[in-house]
Parts: sequence; C-alpha cells; structure tokens
Amino acid sequence: MLLLIPGPVQTRPEVRAALAQDIAPWDNEFKSVFAEIRERVLGIAGGIPGEHATLALQGCGHFIMEAALRTFVPAATAAAPGKILIPLNGTYAGRVERLAREAGRQVVTLALPETRPAAPEEVAAALAADPDITHVAMVYSETGAGIVNDAEAIGAVVRAAGRRLILDAVSGFGALPFNLAEHPECDAVMFTSGKCLEGLPGIGFAVVNVARVVAAAGNAGSWSFDLTDVYGHAQRVGWGNFRFTPPVQVLAAFKVALDFHAAEGQAARLARYQENSRVFHQGMRRIGLRPYLDESVQGPIINIVHQPPDAGFQLQNFIDELKRRGVLISNFYNTPVPTFRVGCIGTVTPEDMARAVVAVDETLAALQVRRRSA
Amino acid sequence: MLLLIPGPVQTRPEVRAALAQDIAPWDNEFKSVFAEIRERVLGIAGGIPGEHATLALQGCGHFIMEAALRTFVPAATAAAPGKILIPLNGTYAGRVERLAREAGRQVVTLALPETRPAAPEEVAAALAADPDITHVAMVYSETGAGIVNDAEAIGAVVRAAGRRLILDAVSGFGALPFNLAEHPECDAVMFTSGKCLEGLPGIGFAVVNVARVVAAAGNAGSWSFDLTDVYGHAQRVGWGNFRFTPPVQVLAAFKVALDFHAAEGQAARLARYQENSRVFHQGMRRIGLRPYLDESVQGPIINIVHQPPDAGFQLQNFIDELKRRGVLISNFYNTPVPTFRVGCIGTVTPEDMARAVVAVDETLAALQVRRRSA
Repeated sequence: MLLLIPGPVQTRPEVRAALAQDIAPWDNEFKSVFAEIRERVLGIAGGIPGEHATLALQGCGHFIMEAALRTFVPAATAAAPGKILIPLNGTYAGRVERLAREAGRQVVTLALPETRPAAPEEVAAALAADPDITHVAMVYSETGAGIVNDAEAIGAVVRAAGRRLILDAVSGFGALPFNLAEHPECDAVMFTSGKCLEGLPGIGFAVVNVARVVAAAGNAGSWSFDLTDVYGHAQRVGWGNFRFTPPVQVLAAFKVALDFHAAEGQAARLARYQENSRVFHQGMRRIGLRPYLDESVQGPIINIVHQPPDAGFQLQNFIDELKRRGVLISNFYNTPVPTFRVGCIGTVTPEDMARAVVAVDETLAALQVRRRSA
Repeated sequence: MLLLIPGPVQTRPEVRAALAQDIAPWDNEFKSVFAEIRERVLGIAGGIPGEHATLALQGCGHFIMEAALRTFVPAATAAAPGKILIPLNGTYAGRVERLAREAGRQVVTLALPETRPAAPEEVAAALAADPDITHVAMVYSETGAGIVNDAEAIGAVVRAAGRRLILDAVSGFGALPFNLAEHPECDAVMFTSGKCLEGLPGIGFAVVNVARVVAAAGNAGSWSFDLTDVYGHAQRVGWGNFRFTPPVQVLAAFKVALDFHAAEGQAARLARYQENSRVFHQGMRRIGLRPYLDESVQGPIINIVHQPPDAGFQLQNFIDELKRRGVLISNFYNTPVPTFRVGCIGTVTPEDMARAVVAVDETLAALQVRRRSA
C-alpha cells in the first residue's frame, strides 16, 4: 500500500521497527537518545546552541501550537496583553485562530484567498495599521489548500516592524528551509515527529528563542502547555529528560528517522517532495482533472484536486476503489469546494507518484466517472 | 530485562509488534478499531452506553487530567466558579493541584499523611465545612507513596454531599475496580494506555458522564483540552474519529493490549498485581530493607522502599548494578525521604518479583551496602 497523506506519512521499515521495544524514558541509555534528538532538531532548525533550544511536548501539532501561543502571547486579561495577527489563507491558519481565541488571546485576522501565498506587503500593511499587534502567527505550509507562505520574506517584514513571529511549520519542517539564526524576530518554530521528518506521530516540537521563553514565564495559564516550564525542567534536571511520560517508542523511532533525514540531506528531501508534487500535479492535468492550485503556487507537501464534475462521483467510493489499487489517500477535504487531497511527503518517490496518477486514472475509468463538465 | 516501573510497563511482544505498521487514522479499517477501543474501555469503566462515553486525548496522564479539570470545573473568573477539594496524600495529588491552580481554578487541599489512604469522614468533614466546594478531585492509586484511596467510600461521601467526583485513575485503571454505573456523582474517570491496561504510552482517556460533559460547554478555556468539544466532534463525525492526529500506532497496539486484558480478566489481573506487590514487599523485609508503607496499606501498583541507611548507597549506582542483573527500576523517587520505587504492574508475574528480590539482595551484597542502621 502506498500511503499518500500529509501525515502520518509512509515511513521506512527501520523506523517502524524501532517502535517495537519496551523503554524506560528516564533510563540513562534512553536519555542520551532524547538529548541527541534535541540537538539534531536544533541543527535542522538552524538554531544557535545557547540562544535557541528544542522543547518537546506529547501529542499533536495542535497541542504544541496552543502551547506556543499561550507561552509567548500574554492573555487578553494580562496587564500587558498581546495581540496576534494571523494571515488567513487556509484551514490550518483558521485552526491557529481558534486555538488562540479559545485560549483567551486577542486575535486579528488578515483574510486572504487560500489559492496563493500571503504577500509580505499585505502583512506589513496590517502591522502598520495596528500598533497593538505584538505577534504574527503564520502557517508555513498550508495543508488546507497546499500553498506555502514565504516565511523568509514575511519574517523580514515582522522583524522590520519590531514584532514577533510564531511559525507553524508542522507540515513542512525538515523539508522547507528555515534558519532560526537568521530570524531573531522568531519566538518559536513548531513541528511534529510525523510529517517531513518521516517519523511516527505522537510528539510535537518547538525550537524556541531561549531569552524569549524565559521572559514568557507566567503567561501560559496551563501547566501542561507552559513551554517556559518545559524549558526550566530541562535546565534543572537535564536535557535528556521529558517532563511527563512521553510516547517513548515514538521518540526511539524518531531518532532512526533523523538518521535517514541526515543521510538524505534536507535539500535532497525537499527536491524529492517537489518532484513528487510536480509529477502528481502534471499527471492530474494530463488525465483530465483540475488541480486546485495553479502550478506556480503549488507547494511540495500536498496536492489538492477538484473532484470530477460528475454527479456519480462519490469521494469514499473513489477512495475505496483507489485503495484496492494500492494507493491510500485522505477521505476528506478542507477546501470550500469539493476536492480530494494527496500527500507528497514520506518515504515516497516520483515513481510512486506516477504510479498513483495511473491508479487515479484507472479508478475513474472503472467507476465510469466523467472528468470534465459536459 | 525485567522492567519494573509503574508505567511505561513491560508489555507483551504481540502488543509491541502491533506498533510497527503505517496507518492512516481516518481510514475506515482503522476507524472500526478505534470505535471498538472506545466501547471496550467504556465496558471496563462500567459505563452505561448513552449515559457515559469514552473520550481520548493525545499525550500523557497530566494532559487528560488538565482537560477534565478545565472542562468540568468552571474557572475562578467564571460567573459561577467551581471549587475543587483535593485530598493531598501523595505527589500525584500535588500535581493535580498544580494543574488546577495554573488553569485558574479555585482549589482547596486536604492535607493528609501520604502513608495511609484518605478516610471518607475526613473528606465528608471538609465538604461540610465549605459549601462552595463543587468537586472532589482524587487520585485513586498514588504513585508517589503507593497507597490506594477508597474510591468507593469517598465516592459515596461526595454523592451524599451533593458534590461531583473527578477521579484520577491513571495508575490503577484496568486493575483496581471502579464501576461508573454505581457512581452518578462521578463526572469523569481518567487513565492512560500505558499502565494497568498494559499498552504503550501516548493516549489519555476520560470516561465521562455525557449529560455533564454536554453541560460543561464553554468552561475549558482551551480548544485542545476541551472534552466537550472532543465529545461533540465524535457525535458529529462518528466515534471512529480522532479530533487531531493521534499516535495511531499506539492505538493499534492498545487494541491488542485490550484483547489480553479481556482474556486475563480484570479480577485476575488485580490479583496478579496484588501478589506481585506482596511478594516484593515481604521480600524486601526478608532481605533486611524497610518498605515505606505498612503492609496493611500497601497498594498493588508500586512498592516504595527506604534506601539503606548506609552513606555508601548511591541510587544511580544501585540502579545501574541492578540493571546489570536484569532488573530495571526507576532512578528517582517522589517521597520526602530517600527511597527507591519498584513497579508491580505490566506483564510481570510473582515469579518475576521474586527474581527481582534476589537481584536487589545480590546487588546490595555486591555493593557492600549495610541494610540497617548500626
């Protein structure tokens, strides 16, 4: 089975095999594994030892994002409240908004079409218009529609405006480049074990600016989600220690996944995903389907394709038939109009993507689905 | 290696083997696995279908406890704030207190010695003295010192006083009995995948009173930790669905662990743990060491033993030497005086515990540690 979803991704057998062991998280042998994970992740993020630190949290991307929002942005009821600007061009940016609002943070959104990246000048204008905005929380790669926002250019705009950046890099970290050393405006970049780093899901990471996380003490309003406490715990008891019981098997597998990431190299991994995405995108057009995005803004993480305009097309039925042909894709979509989603990340190659194009073509033919409006 | 810690526990090879697969969480085949897990867990909790429901959350025991406290107890700033009474007889009760306070909930503690269970009349008196108390949050089995509080009797006291119970059953659920159908005063009972149910860590569970979780809408102040939203999501999209990406491999393994739990039977599992604990407790006394608790109040989950009163004894050194003899125990303790902790749960037997007693004896002999004060 070829698993083509934007996380959990298809992993290497060696990574999965590393799950199948009993481990005591605080055992000295394992502590060295976790400490090494933290160092290597810091390197991937371009962090400077001492100035930046890798913090880890049990759970999913939503949890580590809520932790970052709570920790770095003072609540609306605080003596000096923060205010978050969210460029809104996809479902996951909408989720960041919801996480922030329910955590009692002031939020202002910049409504944008989800079919193109946010323009740096749009963010600059929004910041100029509202001096109360303290932070920009941006999704780097939008899993909703598949676009990639320009973290480099928007980071520069945030820096120039004297504000802070909270970067949700969940779906792209490890492939899309981001070098914290060049982004002093960035409080934290967030991601998980189960996406482009090709591990299994279960751990969220934040690589944080140490001075900022220390200064954020008292903000979180949640012990579980207090990244200042996660940092303080590691400082007190050592960087091989997790604060509460982690999904330790997932960490052991993640270490193996990082070995493969290092062997492939980040640039090569991104190039592979870009080629995966290109092959699929062009393949969809070739077989008469309509990609949701223009190829010029199509990101490397996920392809979204309009459902064929045939009343006989049913998404779950299509997914089931495609699965019978060896390709498993998502059975839901996050766009305002009916689409299907195909992940381009994980241990899959352009040849796999070409095989997926053939499988989609054969499935539609077998289901006798018309691909264009009459 | 014999892993004797109170979670993550030693698991069966079949359980670990189930981790090593790629899975799409929303895939229909997997949805049925998760839906079945929810039903079977409901059964173990003695829940009534329709009146109670199993909710699951990524992460650790602390997370699901914070979620329950936030969801069921209105914040101190709410129009009608809640107030939580916490019988404080161990480290983990202290953690519940910290979770509640940092989440902005009103808390009052009932200070108790950690060497005996809370007496029902003590809780009754505390409730009578403060009519503002709305909830009692109690740890069923204290991993700090190893005592087990009487959930049955204290539940009855809470019920009689017209208050609500939030039961932290993290370390004991699946062994210690608790039948929700007989506890209408209970809003929720919490536990995790990695303790007495003998799965791997990564998922927290709350079996909740449905009417109460629905009535709690708006309390949580956190999207991630809002159990009302977790319930609503399952109602809207189906009970096979997780709200955000779960550590899906841990769920797959948990299903296998539940099969073994059903095959053994809960009463037999508790009896095995009780015998594990008895063999170890008596073994410690026999080799000249002093258990932290009197045997009459020693719980079945974890044994705490005073460190030998010899200046030459060093905990990490002892742990390392014990590990060389095939027994791995915790390298930290949660009591006010120096102790060591030995878990009695997981796929271990009384014979294993007898082997551990021998290993402790041999290790102390090899280290030439004196066991009694001179």
